[in-house]
Amino acid sequence: MAKGSDTRARIIDDAIKLASLEGFAGLTVGRLAERIGMSKSGLFAHFKSKEEIDVAVLAEAVARFRDVVFLKALQAPRGEPRLRALLDRWFDWSNDLVGQPGGCLITQATVELDDRPGRARDLLVESQQQWLDALSRASRVAVEEGHFRSDLDTELFAFQLEGVILATHQAQRLLRTPDAEQRFHRAVEHLLASARASSTGTTPRAPRRSRTSAKSR
Amino acid sequence: MAKGSDTRARIIDDAIKLASLEGFAGLTVGRLAERIGMSKSGLFAHFKSKEEIDVAVLAEAVARFRDVVFLKALQAPRGEPRLRALLDRWFDWSNDLVGQPGGCLITQATVELDDRPGRARDLLVESQQQWLDALSRASRVAVEEGHFRSDLDTELFAFQLEGVILATHQAQRLLRTPDAEQRFHRAVEHLLASARASSTGTTPRAPRRSRTSAKSR
Repeated sequence: MAKGSDTRARIIDDAIKLASLEGFAGLTVGRLAERIGMSKSGLFAHFKSKEEIDVAVLAEAVARFRDVVFLKALQAPRGEPRLRALLDRWFDWSNDLVGQPGGCLITQATVELDDRPGRARDLLVESQQQWLDALSRASRVAVEEGHFRSDLDTELFAFQLEGVILATHQAQRLLRTPDAEQRFHRAVEHLLASARASSTGTTPRAPRRSRTSAKSR
Repeated sequence: MAKGSDTRARIIDDAIKLASLEGFAGLTVGRLAERIGMSKSGLFAHFKSKEEIDVAVLAEAVARFRDVVFLKALQAPRGEPRLRALLDRWFDWSNDLVGQPGGCLITQATVELDDRPGRARDLLVESQQQWLDALSRASRVAVEEGHFRSDLDTELFAFQLEGVILATHQAQRLLRTPDAEQRFHRAVEHLLASARASSTGTTPRAPRRSRTSAKSR
């Protein structure tokens, strides 16, 4: 059993590398078997289908993202500091990938699988939605804490932050813009400044409003 | 000759559809030949290699984008109206694709080809850079016309606008967010408001400064 799960983990690790390089369409059973030095039937002993491989690859990438980004950010104080931590950890995660061929498999997948119905797409939508929810939840807490103005549309704000993330990823990996990191930080600061209570000229609200009332838009 | 170029155009059209659905990794000579009902060697009479097909597909997508987005936007007056027209035409282009399987091949390609050196990647970088340049140039003219404040960093601004575009594409195609269009418009309005002379409390500058001085940051 231990040996079987070790082999499975090794297959997924190689599959992640192959999908990062060639996309999910390039992650075929034949090419993966060749890369690992295993027969196709040997591979099918671990994964019943191409779809099962896709799902396993994506699940592993999402799990790594959770460890490196989500869990680390939770160590920061509630509100704006935690939102900043989420964004900074995302940058580190993305930046660590820049030196590697292929880059962020999750961003890759968001484009490649967006029109292919199936369990891999479902998993991706779920994890991407969780990420956007984490950004808007942290923003909502920042409103409760009085860091951000009370009329902030936190879902729109998460959408705007995700835009900065996607543009940064493109600048890093496709365009190789030398100052991608600076642009990321300046665009994030611009959004944070627009969300802060002081930026609209209104006074900060009393902190710690209940979650229900803070949700109203 | 006419027949040959007709056939070539038909092959590219089918290749665009296949690449939109399956990505560039899924756009293989074998599958394309099968889709068209042609032998592989027949296909090779028109295109010498898989790379040549990729490049032709991308060039055609870029040409269509130029007609539908760039050229139409040029009909709007200089400055902020033209910038708005570029963004609105982009939205129409992207929105028209939502009903079709596969969606925007250019955005697809920006992720899939970002790590694959070659002529297709080169073409993509060039066209994406042209798009960003068009956004920052229109913003610079808006500064010259006195629509935007004189200290606007127009390259950062183009980066921020591209972020809204990428987040909108994700909301439309992956997440199927019902109010993607609203979010796009609100995020664009937010950026335009921040760029306008009046939003910083400074008075608008005299219009029509020379291009050189407007470029200074």
